[in-house]
Formats: sequence, structure tokens, C-alpha cells
Amino acid sequence: MAEQKFVYFFDEGRADMREILGGKGANLAEMSRLNLPVPPGFTVTTDACAEYRRAGKMSEEILCQVKEHLRRLERERGMKFGSTLNPLLVSVRSGAAVSMPGMMDTVLNLGLNEDTVSGLASATSDERFALDCYRRLIQMFGNVVKKIEHDYFEDILEDVRTEEGVRGDHEISVNGLRAVIDRYLRVYEEETGDPFPTDPWEQLVLTIEAVFRSWDNERARVYRRVHGISDEMGTAVNVQAMVYGNRGEKCGTGVLFTRDPSDGTRRIYGEYLSNAQGEDVVAGIRTPKPVSELKEKMPDVYRELEEAVGKLETHYRDMQDIEFTVEDGELFMLQTRAGKRTALAAVKIAHDMVHEGLIDKNEALTKVEPKDVGVLLHRRIDPEADAEVLAKGLGASPGAACGKVVFDADEAEARGSRGESVILVRPETTPDDIHGMVEADGVLTSRGGLTCHAAIVARGMGKPCVVGCEELSIDLASGTASTDEVHIGEGDILTIDGASGQVFLGETALIEPTVAPEFEEFLSWADEVRRLGVRANADTPVDARRSLEFGAEGIGLCRTEHMFMQRERLKVMQDMIVSFSAEDRERALDRLLPMQTEDFEAIFREMDGKPVTIRLLDPPLHEFLPDRAEIKAEIEALRGGESASRVELAEKEEMLQRAVSLEEVNPMLGQRGCRVGILYPEIYAMQSRAIFTAAARVLTDGIEVLPEIMVPLISDVREFDEIAGEIHRIAGEVQKREAIEITYTVGTMIEIPRACVTADEIARSAEFFSFGTNDLTQTVFGFSRDDAEAKFLHVYLSRGLLEENPFAVLDRKGVGGLMEMGLQLGRSSRSDLKVGICGEHGGDPDSIEFCHAAGLDYVSCSPYRVPVARLAAAHSALQDAAPE
Amino acid sequence: MAEQKFVYFFDEGRADMREILGGKGANLAEMSRLNLPVPPGFTVTTDACAEYRRAGKMSEEILCQVKEHLRRLERERGMKFGSTLNPLLVSVRSGAAVSMPGMMDTVLNLGLNEDTVSGLASATSDERFALDCYRRLIQMFGNVVKKIEHDYFEDILEDVRTEEGVRGDHEISVNGLRAVIDRYLRVYEEETGDPFPTDPWEQLVLTIEAVFRSWDNERARVYRRVHGISDEMGTAVNVQAMVYGNRGEKCGTGVLFTRDPSDGTRRIYGEYLSNAQGEDVVAGIRTPKPVSELKEKMPDVYRELEEAVGKLETHYRDMQDIEFTVEDGELFMLQTRAGKRTALAAVKIAHDMVHEGLIDKNEALTKVEPKDVGVLLHRRIDPEADAEVLAKGLGASPGAACGKVVFDADEAEARGSRGESVILVRPETTPDDIHGMVEADGVLTSRGGLTCHAAIVARGMGKPCVVGCEELSIDLASGTASTDEVHIGEGDILTIDGASGQVFLGETALIEPTVAPEFEEFLSWADEVRRLGVRANADTPVDARRSLEFGAEGIGLCRTEHMFMQRERLKVMQDMIVSFSAEDRERALDRLLPMQTEDFEAIFREMDGKPVTIRLLDPPLHEFLPDRAEIKAEIEALRGGESASRVELAEKEEMLQRAVSLEEVNPMLGQRGCRVGILYPEIYAMQSRAIFTAAARVLTDGIEVLPEIMVPLISDVREFDEIAGEIHRIAGEVQKREAIEITYTVGTMIEIPRACVTADEIARSAEFFSFGTNDLTQTVFGFSRDDAEAKFLHVYLSRGLLEENPFAVLDRKGVGGLMEMGLQLGRSSRSDLKVGICGEHGGDPDSIEFCHAAGLDYVSCSPYRVPVARLAAAHSALQDAAPE
Repeated sequence: MAEQKFVYFFDEGRADMREILGGKGANLAEMSRLNLPVPPGFTVTTDACAEYRRAGKMSEEILCQVKEHLRRLERERGMKFGSTLNPLLVSVRSGAAVSMPGMMDTVLNLGLNEDTVSGLASATSDERFALDCYRRLIQMFGNVVKKIEHDYFEDILEDVRTEEGVRGDHEISVNGLRAVIDRYLRVYEEETGDPFPTDPWEQLVLTIEAVFRSWDNERARVYRRVHGISDEMGTAVNVQAMVYGNRGEKCGTGVLFTRDPSDGTRRIYGEYLSNAQGEDVVAGIRTPKPVSELKEKMPDVYRELEEAVGKLETHYRDMQDIEFTVEDGELFMLQTRAGKRTALAAVKIAHDMVHEGLIDKNEALTKVEPKDVGVLLHRRIDPEADAEVLAKGLGASPGAACGKVVFDADEAEARGSRGESVILVRPETTPDDIHGMVEADGVLTSRGGLTCHAAIVARGMGKPCVVGCEELSIDLASGTASTDEVHIGEGDILTIDGASGQVFLGETALIEPTVAPEFEEFLSWADEVRRLGVRANADTPVDARRSLEFGAEGIGLCRTEHMFMQRERLKVMQDMIVSFSAEDRERALDRLLPMQTEDFEAIFREMDGKPVTIRLLDPPLHEFLPDRAEIKAEIEALRGGESASRVELAEKEEMLQRAVSLEEVNPMLGQRGCRVGILYPEIYAMQSRAIFTAAARVLTDGIEVLPEIMVPLISDVREFDEIAGEIHRIAGEVQKREAIEITYTVGTMIEIPRACVTADEIARSAEFFSFGTNDLTQTVFGFSRDDAEAKFLHVYLSRGLLEENPFAVLDRKGVGGLMEMGLQLGRSSRSDLKVGICGEHGGDPDSIEFCHAAGLDYVSCSPYRVPVARLAAAHSALQDAAPE
Repeated sequence: MAEQKFVYFFDEGRADMREILGGKGANLAEMSRLNLPVPPGFTVTTDACAEYRRAGKMSEEILCQVKEHLRRLERERGMKFGSTLNPLLVSVRSGAAVSMPGMMDTVLNLGLNEDTVSGLASATSDERFALDCYRRLIQMFGNVVKKIEHDYFEDILEDVRTEEGVRGDHEISVNGLRAVIDRYLRVYEEETGDPFPTDPWEQLVLTIEAVFRSWDNERARVYRRVHGISDEMGTAVNVQAMVYGNRGEKCGTGVLFTRDPSDGTRRIYGEYLSNAQGEDVVAGIRTPKPVSELKEKMPDVYRELEEAVGKLETHYRDMQDIEFTVEDGELFMLQTRAGKRTALAAVKIAHDMVHEGLIDKNEALTKVEPKDVGVLLHRRIDPEADAEVLAKGLGASPGAACGKVVFDADEAEARGSRGESVILVRPETTPDDIHGMVEADGVLTSRGGLTCHAAIVARGMGKPCVVGCEELSIDLASGTASTDEVHIGEGDILTIDGASGQVFLGETALIEPTVAPEFEEFLSWADEVRRLGVRANADTPVDARRSLEFGAEGIGLCRTEHMFMQRERLKVMQDMIVSFSAEDRERALDRLLPMQTEDFEAIFREMDGKPVTIRLLDPPLHEFLPDRAEIKAEIEALRGGESASRVELAEKEEMLQRAVSLEEVNPMLGQRGCRVGILYPEIYAMQSRAIFTAAARVLTDGIEVLPEIMVPLISDVREFDEIAGEIHRIAGEVQKREAIEITYTVGTMIEIPRACVTADEIARSAEFFSFGTNDLTQTVFGFSRDDAEAKFLHVYLSRGLLEENPFAVLDRKGVGGLMEMGLQLGRSSRSDLKVGICGEHGGDPDSIEFCHAAGLDYVSCSPYRVPVARLAAAHSALQDAAPE
């Protein structure tokens, strides 16, 4: 068997060798292959890591290969590791295949000791520089490899600064540095029991081993578990010749993005700090300058940088995030990787790169994450706004909100319902706060993670929310929220950004979501490849218009109950509900008929021939009556009043009686959906009449119309048959009366497990299915959403008993399994059965991927999620086309 | 092609030709073959009926075959159809393969007209008899074939009786009968527009056609739909020579059962009326005598009858219901069929016939319907009791109850909870009456059918109930229930029989259910053949003992929550629930531990090594707290009182707060089952500790014990793993402490759709499954049982949207489909997975048949249903063995 190759020199690797070289190593190799100026070095592979983790030590074979490659590095640099004349110094950096925080990261200046430090001093003619490098090595090595707390070192530095009366580390004298080094070495020996290893080879091996071990540290393990990364992958280690940006004015270090990461504009965007190393930028003692200034100060370097940028973008076909160092006027590329960017920038860059001929449309689509696109459709903070960041927490539910601070849910409810904009600020929320959250514009908590109560509930409500903002200390007793510097009281104004987690003081300009022309073109490419149709859930003509603007191909769910909730109609609806006889009910319904007809007519006109799926009345009737306590109070008031109208009193008492009789133990599983239609057939009859009359009127004006009437909550085909029979009868009646032919279909929601299991029977009668995954998730899990989200789902999520909130992300195994069963059975009876989804999951990318794979015809979601769905559907289609 | 045979002479047929000869025809044929004295005749087949229904008329071929067979009948009897000298008269009777009310039944004396009637008169030397026969023919033919209302004929009869001054029809003179016939013929012509057909052949053909047509009348169609009988079967028609039991003292007619149909004793049991025809018995003018009297009066006939009885029982291997006629001292057998019998008799007869060598054990088992056996296990009315039947309604829920009449649910609750026996009497019940039904011993309504609210709810409660007792008029205002003769007021005593629907005045002796020795032996035969195990649901040592008495092989569901409901424990339970910290909860649980341990110990001792499946706490915690309104009232009282204890007040306020925080929108889908165990692990830990400690104690005494710990409401394997891990930990702890090895398993209820769909995952961890079909039915249908049974299920049942209440009879397609999925997936991961059912369906024969076919290992049901389940399981096994 050939010997296994555990070490690759940079020019031996390639970008597609991430798995064994790690992301950083693969990109360094690729840059070397592109002849970009990369300080030479080599990568110890993830295989070596696996070997080390298995054996608990570095094998002779690995050590031997490392040594071989170190020799080559010496030859290339013309320097020698451990030489006192011209010592080779190296950096060691970890780099797994997947970027992963929590692991040991970097040790610089390896190879220095009491002897080589003087070699460095003479070779660079800079003793202070050499001593500073040595000091840094001891500190990094001690901390990273030997776990000595930073404080030990920082205390020493501070002591010496005090002794010398200087403020910055760079002002410490040569003698001072010598003293620092002496004390560092003493601390090292005290803490580890061993002297600091002076042998450069020993330094190197210990550091590589430490990187390998860090793969298994607690934070890394947790990160991997949370992100579903296999423990088996391991990390690679990059050993690279040191270059220095901190050796004078012709030196420096910088980071840049090849395009503007905030809006995607094509320009080099970054920062440069002269005479500095990377850590100095992080330390923030000096303010970096824009990279563009290099153009004047070091035009050759800048030109070379521009060339490198062009080369890397063309090569990687993506916007890059680059680290570089200039040593004595010479440019070195230290790292390149795909740059993080805002959703806005992602779309702009993908769009532009197609027009630049860099990538094709399909590749452009894959460059944008569907879930990120959602942000573009939320209100957001004007990037031009000069907002003062007060604190930062976790972005728990995207969107920006601005309003008066209130600390109490009742107060939030009171002010919110009066139309004031309020931000509910709490240490954490509980189910008792939900009524306040409903009326608040946004929610901010000082405690909790992304799966705490506030986060889950706010996401459910689509409400901006920042949680775990620990800088803020909230004192409910005094009604203040304070950072170290600022005190905020009730009524003060805050702005929160639920995407970034930022909290701003005062009012900040917000931008309403719009669809930019680039975004629209980009989405049109998505439309070209996707197989899944995308519709919107829209209940009003305004919603219908917005749906079309966002690219919906029809309405997948038009809920008719909201139409009854308008004030003037509610009264008529209540009259209907308290009616004792079918005749009285019909009289009230006769008054609702013209209103409903107008509603449907307006929606049909907006949709102009696109399909409109109308769900017949779904909620239980008691939802249209006031709360019992409220009616009781009104009765009391009427009784107490002087001019008590006996008629009014009798009416209220009737209503109370009806409310009591409609009360249910488990309303979710009670008299709702088609069960209401079965018990009170007059209601569905009125709605059907309204739909067909509206359709006839619109058709008469020469406008196409395609109503799809949807019966909710079917659990047995016999329910459907009874109701559909009546709908067809009324359709016939209206068509005859209006002497016009209306094309329509009658189908059903599939939202009860039994409907999935008996879908073959149902599909013999129903012309289409639409999965109502909100209710289906409730019944498949046996979870009441109201109770679960308020009372136990957060516990399940935090303990890992559930990976995701199944009301947000479709549960593929359980709910999805039943959907697949329903689909397969349904199509077994009716091969051309049209099947969609209209639960909230219809706008969630992961769930859309499932819907695509399962073979649904379309998804339907809220208008604002339509662009997300279009892109997610395109991604799913592209995944099908992609090779394994 | 050979000509199709549409007509069979009796001696050409056999008992197994029911499908083409109908039940009556096949049995007449069989009796002929047995050389029993059957008046000769022939059967027109169901094929002829099909042909008639298809063509709308009798084909030449059929008519020709009928005529041929009529000729043979003439030859055999030596008489001639239509002869004026010795006319052959025939009866025509319908007879489908399945006994079916609602169809045209019988026309007698066909062949008579003005001419033949005198032939009959001279042949029988009885003019009055001949005229009466003719009169009956016109009336029956007119009514049955031509749909002339009976009243027309009855009015004429009454007029003539009045004219002659006589009371009975048999007293009308010859001249009177002539007048009746004249007027009958006139009415016939007026009503039909045609004269009465004098041609005997025409009479015969019209009558056969009328029978065929009656197959499609409304009542017959409804009956078939309700009983799932195919419309295609059609009916046969039997044409038989007339014999007369009404031609003098040596004539008569009778019916008999070959064994006593009420208790199964082996003796001829029946009635005989001399000088009479069948209709006279029905008319009830004279009281029939016991058949046994024939022994003295006509010993030859009786001996012949005894021989026929022996022959028929031996031949049919079942108890027979026989009709016979004696004409001039000669016995004729008119009909034989399996006799209806009580459940008690059914068991006794099946048992005895095995011992008599008539049938084998397996055949005996098939002779008793499992559902009927249930009656033997309810309290029933002492058949010796001399009870006065007040009225009769529909038997809606079996069992007998006796108590004071109350007309109001509140009053029923008040008296019932004081320990009084009460019968709640209402026109009908509504959900507002449920609290009264709970406390009543029985329920009686004057309105409603078998699926009305009262019926459904009472069956659910296992409470005796009679509904639709329309003879009773109930006046709530005055508090009386009255028949035409009797007025009953509140506090008067009634007895109801929920099986027969009878209502008795006053107290009636009731018999507690017992298992007779014959029944026990019979059930032991069931045990020999059944494959399904049968366990009982038992929560207490008393239940456990009863389960064993009824033959249970273990406990399939031991609910632990009832153990907490006992008064002294409830307080401790409440202390635990209102605890803020896990520590406080544990302190309260420590007090419950010894009590639970004792409970389990006692049950284990009773069960003596048989498996005991213990379900960990299942209901939501708020069920252990008093109602909110109740706590509020107590707080008010404490505040108002002089000696208000501040501690007590604080405690109550804490409890109220906890009750509010535990309140849920949909408790059925909320914080219950294993969710409580996840949120408060201390509770399950205490229960596990109690189980293992009890097991250790019992084992120490040398008694075997096999606890199966069952985790309720699992929807994902991760829930199960978390809880099972803790149970195993505690098991280890106790085994170590007690130094004893305990054999136990940990499994789960499958009662959530998601558990069925992910059963492969769950079965990797769970050692057994038990389908909780009560909850599974709720979630699969999306029906809250509380709400559905109270509010809409009766509408669904009455409109045929559901065939059965799915909470009583397992929904095979929906719930059953998911069970099959769960079973198959579960066994795919664990091939020896033990699977049972512990919902109420475990005691329902139809559902047991499903469980057997699906491959479950056992069913578990209430102790009283165990015998039903044993027999139903045996039936299922025998069905497997039966040839197709």
C-alpha cells in the first residue's frame, strides 16, 4: 500500500479538496495555484487529525511528512527553522472543512526562542520588533496550547506599562519587553510545571496537536451538534511562513470585500491599517483607513490587489472576503473566502454577476438563500439613518419596529389597541404576556435564547423581536431599562431590528419593503426553473393586488371569515348565530349575501382570471360572539341603568345563552370547519351563492374568473359529498338564472389525519386538495398550538426533544409522512388531482423543499413570503437537476 | 345453452340453496327432503326476480315454468287450480335469502272465485268456511297486490257485524259473508278501476309480480341500506298448496321453539290454537294453549311433532322456530328456521348441544354473538320478577336500573351524589344534563332514537338507558310523566331495562351479573381457539381480582391517576402541583411514594405473576385542582369570615394562581401525558420508584411479578428516550438497593397519529406498544370526544355521515389504517414487538375482529367486557380457519 499523504504543500492542493485540507487550506492552495502572492506553507490534513484522534498522538509517519514539508519551506524561503542567523518563523492556523467557531485558532511567530530572537533582531535590524514577536509567541502559545488564562499575561503587560509610565503596548521600551518576556516565561513555568519549549520543532508539534485536540472541546462539540456537523470530519492545520505588516510604514495589513457587502455595489470595500498586524486591527487602538487610500499611498500594491481581486472573483465566481498583508511594499494574500453579505447585496451581486457574464442564471439563484430574501420583505432600518446603537441581543424574529417602551403586557395591550406604537420590554415573557405581545409592534427581552418563549411566540406572530439583550438590565419595579450609560423609562422611544438583534435609542427611519428591479429580474429567473406553483393567501382585494405584485400565480387560500369580522357585518353575523330557526338564520344570511358577493367580485376582478381558492367558513361560531364575561358585564350594566331597554336586555341574554351553548372543551377539535356547514347548511349555501353570483357578474364584463371552492376540515368523504352536492346545486341555479357558464371546481383542505388516510375516497369526489398544515401539525402531534407554544414547546426545543418548531418548519417524518400518504392515495383515485399547501409552512424554504420533493403542484403563503417561496421552489428544482 | 331453471319444486331444493330459493323456500325444500309432512309446492327463484326487475315483466320462460310446476302440484294433490269441483288453492309467500321486514309477505287462498268457492264449499262441506276463505283472499289480494287500504275492508266487516248484531268476524252468517264479498268486490273495482280477477292464473301471476316489486319498496330499501344488504339479491316466491287449521276441532295451528328461548332448557316450548289459522293467533281474540297440551288431546300429532323436532334439530344442529298446522288430525310443517333466543339461552343451548354430541365446540362458539354476551354481564331484571310493564321505548344502553324518578339534572346530581338511586327522566337530554346523567342510575327519555344525545352519552358511560319512549308524555312544568293510564311524579319508583327498552312501574328485582358454570365452560372453549390475548383495564386490587374471575390474562391498562384522586391523597397531590420548585414538588411526592407503592404491591399480589401494564400519570395537572370558580368562592368565604386564616387564604390564592396558569385552550392537546413527565420529571421518577419497590417486595415473598411500564402520549421517540432512560436508572437503583433482579419492560401508548407514522423510530426504543384508541380516534378525526358526542355526533350518525360512533366501534379505515401502519413500522424495527390495544374499543367485538386481523397480540378492556372479548377473539380465529 502506498504511504498515506498527510501533508500537502500549498501548490499541491486545490479548492475542491476542502474535505482533507479544510476551507482555509484549500483556498490558500487555490491562491497558490493562481500564482497569487501567498506566503508559502503547507497543510496537515484532516486525515492526520483523524489519525491523531484515534491514536491519541501524532504518528511517526505524520511527523516525518511534516518535517519533510518544513524542509521544503526552509528551502523556498532561504531561511532555517531554529536558525540564529535568519530564522524561519511560521504561523499555525486551524481550518476545518466547514467554518466553525469555538476551536483553537491561531499561533503566530513559532520558531522563536532566546537564541533565534536575536537572529530575527539582526535580520530585521529591529530588536524591539523581534522581542515583541517573541512576547506574543509566549502569550499565544501559553494561552492557546497550554490554556493559561490571558489575565496572567495581561496583568504583566499592565504592570510594565505602569512601571514605564506608557499607555500602549507599542510604547513599551526594549528593556521593558525584555522584562515582560522574563516574567512571561516565569508564569509559563509556574502554570505548566515545565519550562517554555525552546525547541522550535517541539513548539510546532505541540501546537499542531493542540489544534487537533481543540476539535473535541466543548464549545466546538456543541456548535457541531446544533448545526448538524459530523464529529468525524476533523480539522486540518495550516503551517505558513510568517510575513509582517508591522515592520514600518511600508508595511500594513487589511481586509476587503470584493463588492460592497451591504448593498452589493461592485467596488473594493475594506480597511487597511499601516504598520500593523491583524491583532492590532482587532484591538481597535488605531482606526483603520479605507483600502482605497492605498491607491495613492502604494499604487503598485493597490494595482496588484485589484488584479488579485479580479482573478479571485473570476476564479471563484463569487464575492470574496480577503485578508492581506503588505510587508515592505510587497503584497501577500493571507486568506480568501466567500464573503458574507446582506440579503440585499446577495441579490444585487448574483444579478450583476449574471450580467457580467461571470455566472449563469441558475448559479445566480443558488447564491441567495431563500430564507434571507424574507428580510427584504420586512420593514427594515434605513441604512442611511444615523441610528445610535444602544445594545445588541439576538435577532429572534426579523423586521424592524419602533415605538414607546412599555414594561407591562396590560399596558402594551391598552396603548397598542389605542393605535400607539409600543415595544414591549421584559426580562423574559410568559404566557401571561401574550395579549400584550399581540398589540405591541415589537418585543425586546434581556434574557432567553432563540428558542425562548418570546422568540417562539413573536416568530409565530411575525412580529419583530430581539431576545437575550443582556446589556440591558431591566428593573420592573422602577420601570427602567438601563445599560451602563443610559437609563430608559416607560414612554421613551426605542427601535429594534429583529434580524440583527440591534437595539437603537430613539426613533429611527424605517423602510417599507419594496421589490427592486434587480430583485424582480432575479426572481423571474427563479420562475424559469421552478416546477412548483406559488400562490398567496389573500383575503381582501388589497391583499390580492399585493400578491400579484410579489409574483403570486393565484390565491391559494382566501379565508372568508375575516369578511364577517368587519364591524357592521359582525352584528348581522351575530344575529344569524343567535337565531333559533333555520329561517331566522337565512334572513340574517340574506343580509350578508350582497356584502359577500361584493367581496368576491372585487377579488375576482383583481385576480383577472387567475385561480382563487375560497375556503368556506371555518372558525367555530362562538368566535363571532363577544367573550362571555363581556356579555355578562353588558347585561349587568343594562340592568343597572335607568333607561334599560328590555329588548336590548333580552337580546344580550339570548346572546349569552348562545355563547354558553356554543362553548367547547376543546374548540380546536369541536364544532368548526365543515362541521358548521353540516349543522347549518344555510351558511355555506349563502357563501356559494355569493361566489357564483360574483363570478357571473365579472364574467359578464368579459373578465375571466376561476373560483376553486374549498371545504375545510373534512375527515370523511361523506361530509364532502353532502356539502359539494349543495354547492353544485347552487352553481346550477345561479348559472341558469344568470344564463352564463361558470368554470369552477370544488375541493377540500386536507388538515385532519383521517383525510390523509382516506384520501383515495375523498379524491373520488374532491377535485383538488390543499394541505392545511397548521391544523394537520396540531392533530398529527396532538399539540394545541395555543397551548404548546405558550407552555411547553420552548422546553422541547431547548432540550432537543424537537429540532424545530413544527408550526414553523414542516415535520417531514410525521406530518410530511401523512401528506405523502394523502397525496399518493389521492392521486391513485384521480391521477390529475391538483394538490397544494396553504398552511404557514407554504412560505418556509425547508418546507417548500419537501413540498417540491413530495410532488405537490403549488405552495401558497402570505403575500410577503411569495418571493421567498419562488426562490425556494427554484432551489428545489435546481437540486433535482444537480448531480449527486 | 341449457334453459335457466327459474322454478324448483320443494323436493328439488336444499337448505344450502338460500341464495336462489330464499331462506323460507330453502327450508321448505329441506324439510321435504327430510320427508317431513310439508304441504307440497314450489319456489320461484331470486333469478326470476332479477329477470323481472330487469325486464319489468315476467318472461314467457318464467311463466311457462311456473305453469309446469303448478301442473305437477295439481297432480300431487289430485286437485285442479280453478276447478269448480275440487279446486286447488295455494298460498304465495315471499322469502329472500336474508330475513327482511318491509316486503310484501303473504296472500292465502289463491284460486278462489265465484265458481271455485262453491267447489270448495262442497268439497269441504262447509259453505261458511269457503266464503270466509274467499272474503280473506279478496281482502289480502286487494291490500297486498293492489294497495287498497285495509280500512275499506274493515269498515265493511264492521258494518255487516253491526247489521247482524255480532261481535266477532267468525260469528258472521253465511248471508252476511255473501254481503261482505259483494261489497268487497265493489270496493275493489272502485279503487282499482278493474274488476277483481276471477282467473286463478291471473291471480297467481299478479301476486308473484307484486312480491317481486315489493323488493324495491321504500321500507325494504331503507332496511337493506341500514343493514348493508345488497340491492341485487332479490327475493324468491313460494307457492304452496293450502292446508287449513280452521276447519273444526281436529284442526289447529301452532308455533314452537325446540328449546326454551329464554333460558335454553331442552324442551318443546310453544303455543297451539285449535280450529284456527295463523292470523287468528296474531289477532289475539282467543288465548293459545301451551303446545304440550297436544300431548293429551292429539297424542299422535304430538308424537309426530316430537319426531319432527328431533329430526330438525339433528339436521340443522340448532334450536328451531317452527310453524305447523293440523288439518283434520294431520300434521303439516309450514316453516322452520333458527330460533331467536336470549343470550343466556344461546350460551346454554350451545353448551348443551356440545354435550349432546350435536355440534363440536367450535360450532358452539359461532352460535353465540359476542355482543350479546355483554348482556349477561350487566345487571338485569330477574325473569322471575312479576314486573308491570308501564311502557316500551328503545333499548339504548344495556343493563337494568331501578330508582326514584327525577326530572331535573341538578336534582339528579344532588340526590345521586347523596347515594340515592335515581332515574333521570327527560323529554330528551342536552349537554346541560350530563352532570345529572353522571349521578343517575339510569336515563329515560320520551324522544330520540338510538343515536340521540342521551343514547350516545349513556352508552359512553355504560349506564342503562331507554330512549324514544313515546307512550310517556312528560310535563316538566308539573313534574309528571304520564301514560294514558298512569301518572308518575318525582320520587316515584321506576325500573328500566336498557337492553329491551322496557319500563316497569315500581321496584323490580335485579340480578347481579355472574358467570354460570356453563358459561365458564363455554368461554374455556373460546380460549382454546383464540389467538388474541385478552387483558383487562384495572386500576385497583378489586378490579384486578374481578378481571381474573372473568378470565383476563393480565392487566393491559392500570391507570395511576385514579390512585391520586382518593380524598386524603388529593391534598398531597395538590400540594405538589402548587409547588414552585422541583424540591417542593419532590417533598410532596415523597409523601405519595409509600401510598403508590402499596397500591402497586396489592395489585401485583392479586395478579400473581401475570403481566401488569402500568401507565404513568396521564391527565393534565389541572384536573387535580378544584374548579377555578370553586377556589374563588372559597377565597371569598375566607376573606369574609371572621377567623380568616391568613395561611389558608394564601394557600388558596396560590392554588388559584396555579389553576389559572395551568388553564388551557384545548386541554386534550395540551400539557398532559408524557408532556407532564417531561416538564416535571419528579412525578414519573416517584411512580417508577413505587413500581420497582413494590415489585421487589412481592418478589421477596416468592411471588412472580411482571410490570410493564407504559409512557403515555408519545409523539416522538426522543420524548420516550428521555423518560425511559430515567425509568431504567431508577430500576437499577432499586434493584441494587433491594439486591433483587426485577424483570420489567418499558413501552408506550400509541395514541397520537405521529406515533403511528414514526413507529419504526419509537419501536427501536420501546419494548411494547399499546394502542390508545380513544385518543387516537380523537386526533385522527380531529374530534374532541367531549364536544363531538355532546354537540354534533348524533347529527352525523342520524344523517348517515358516520355509520357508527367511532368512539364505540373502531373506525377501520382511518384509525385502523394508522394502527396498521404503526404496527407494520414498529415490527419492522423490532420483530417481536408486543402490541395491544387498551382503548374502549378493546371490548367491542367488531373492533376485536379488526385487532385480530391486524395482528395485535392482545386486547384489553373493562373487566366486564373480558368474556365478550374472549368470545369475539375466538370468532375471529374461527373465521380465519373457515373456508372462503
